[in-house]
Amino acid sequence: MTIAEFQRLINVMYSDKDRARGTPATFLWLIEEIGELAAAVAEGTQEEKAAEFADVLAWIATIANVEGVDLTAAIQEKYGRGCPGCGREVCQCDTKNVQV
Amino acid sequence: MTIAEFQRLINVMYSDKDRARGTPATFLWLIEEIGELAAAVAEGTQEEKAAEFADVLAWIATIANVEGVDLTAAIQEKYGRGCPGCGREVCQCDTKNVQV
Repeated sequence: MTIAEFQRLINVMYSDKDRARGTPATFLWLIEEIGELAAAVAEGTQEEKAAEFADVLAWIATIANVEGVDLTAAIQEKYGRGCPGCGREVCQCDTKNVQV
Repeated sequence: MTIAEFQRLINVMYSDKDRARGTPATFLWLIEEIGELAAAVAEGTQEEKAAEFADVLAWIATIANVEGVDLTAAIQEKYGRGCPGCGREVCQCDTKNVQV
């Protein structure tokens, strides 16, 4: 599945409702799912983790649709020429990306 | 670009560092980027929004890699047969997905 196909799937499924609700209120649901993902990676099964990753991606895709952002283009622009920090295929940054 | 290609790109670019750091500390960086995305959708340009969506997706992909989750399979399992709530291609749920 391409990123564009996923974005279109979510557009058909949810965008009318999410446009009507608007980005701020839709963002709240993304944050709820981020919390569920946090719980899943902390103590969930692989199936539970997978389901929460899917939900987070769906809310991100729908917000991108509402905002008119093409996720494929966004990724290619930011990560398509290597790490945005160091420009390498395998990140060599000695910055915040290395350690908290 | 497929979701699998993006997950592999991020795996090559960041997974060694992110596996060493571990999921909890890596999750903190995801949350920072979620905050940057919130700021961008609130008052950013389209270019700034796109960059923040890309960053959020990159952190989600790297956490999925660390956790051994295949994002394509996760999406197909959860959203590949219609809305998880109502089973339809265009969501008709009369639940929390409709309005906050």
